[in-house]
Amino acid sequence: MTQPRFITLEGGEGAGKSTQARALRTRLEALGHEVVLTREPGGAPGAEAIRHLLVTGDTGRWTPLAETLLHFAAREDHLAHTIRPALARGAWVVSDRFVDSTFAYQGGAQGVGEETVKALSALVIGADMPALTIILDLPVETGLARAHSRAGVDNSGEDRYERMEQVFHQTLRDAFLAIAKAQPERCVVIDASQSEEDVARQIWHSVTSRLAT
Amino acid sequence: MTQPRFITLEGGEGAGKSTQARALRTRLEALGHEVVLTREPGGAPGAEAIRHLLVTGDTGRWTPLAETLLHFAAREDHLAHTIRPALARGAWVVSDRFVDSTFAYQGGAQGVGEETVKALSALVIGADMPALTIILDLPVETGLARAHSRAGVDNSGEDRYERMEQVFHQTLRDAFLAIAKAQPERCVVIDASQSEEDVARQIWHSVTSRLAT
Ligand SMILES: Nc1ncnc2c1ncn2[C@@H]1O[C@H](COP(=O)(O)OP(=O)(O)OP(=O)(O)O)[C@@H](O)[C@H]1O
Ligand SMILES: Nc1ncnc2c1ncn2[C@@H]1O[C@H](COP(=O)(O)OP(=O)(O)OP(=O)(O)O)[C@@H](O)[C@H]1O
Ligand SMILES: [Mg+2]
Ligand SMILES: [Mg+2]
Repeated sequence: MTQPRFITLEGGEGAGKSTQARALRTRLEALGHEVVLTREPGGAPGAEAIRHLLVTGDTGRWTPLAETLLHFAAREDHLAHTIRPALARGAWVVSDRFVDSTFAYQGGAQGVGEETVKALSALVIGADMPALTIILDLPVETGLARAHSRAGVDNSGEDRYERMEQVFHQTLRDAFLAIAKAQPERCVVIDASQSEEDVARQIWHSVTSRLAT
Repeated sequence: MTQPRFITLEGGEGAGKSTQARALRTRLEALGHEVVLTREPGGAPGAEAIRHLLVTGDTGRWTPLAETLLHFAAREDHLAHTIRPALARGAWVVSDRFVDSTFAYQGGAQGVGEETVKALSALVIGADMPALTIILDLPVETGLARAHSRAGVDNSGEDRYERMEQVFHQTLRDAFLAIAKAQPERCVVIDASQSEEDVARQIWHSVTSRLAT
């Protein structure tokens, strides 16, 4: 039911997902593995075009349901063109966000509901769920402050989700924690307020103790 | 279960949908109605951005499932921002393509299957189905020849579906006829090889005999 070399990183804005995804790639590569480091929304040419529609523009430009469908269209493209081919040739796949972000953002915080996201997940992902999901947990203010300071240097203009309200981000945090509680065989929650090195060490411990590296 | 002022035009490439949608608007306006003439994919700003991803580029750029999800994301946007507001204020809505195109193209010709399109249709459209759907039926070669001659003058580059193979277009025609047969209370098939004026007259007959104008 899951893909033993497929790991996802999840959590709110600025939790350290991109930082830790890179650190995890380095450690897996040091063991001699091919690693495909990828991200959502995006991770394949079509999916990146859809990403652009999702992460820029007015916060209210899409209804929650349209947004959910766009995320799953991007995910289908990502699975077809990047994730499934990589797993098929024996590579590890580390994805910076995946379906739990849709459960938390659209299903939870934006009100689409778990049932709809579940149905789309069954349709699009099927048996290709990650074997391990790292949920980086952080107080909302800390995460947004980190994301803002990074925004000052990156210039991508990809701040549509960041600009949503504080209460939205709190609901999001609660949703990620609820997912972890409901699926402990797949999810590990890590305190992301620790130093980068400590977070990386804990992630690596989860990977080596749960998966055959 | 349906919207009594919502009419859709369906059929293969070059069948005359856009021509007849304009003619129908003219006749409804002559009765003093507000008419919103719209189209799919598209019909609202977000949906038009999605349209661009669908109607340009390589014929194989999307998997059939990604394509289906993109069409429904666009349709959700179209319903939310154009169709439902228009119907709510009492306007007539004439749409050049709607959900039957997804059943015929993605569900049938591209192999996604009727069940998946039905499930997405229930999720996105709910009770807002058109009260009347005109299916313009034409031999495949005639339609493609008309569409090509029009392509010479329009320059939009929106020819991704036209470039799909002949057998694809035959499957499409059969799929539209099967929909009409299965849902005679909603669908009328009209022979689109007749003159523009004759087709327009038959469409108007269907509208006035089936709907309260
Ligand atoms: N453990 C940490 N302690 C302090 N700062 C950190 C830590 N991890 C990452 N950062 C910094 O916080 C900022 C956000 O980190 P990163 O981009 O990895 O987060 P993210 O979860 O990918 O954010 P986003 O959701 O916006 O993509 C960066 O400037 C990064 O250097
Ligand atoms: N009844 C008709 N007889 C002959 N030519 C027609 C008729 N109806 C439309 N045409 C011409 O055929 C071409 C295609 O018509 P139109 O654009 O209305 O079709 P369409 O179904 O909207 O095509 P597409 O699927 O490509 O959008 C146009 O050049 C139009 O003038
Ligand atoms: Mg990031
Ligand atoms: Mg047309």
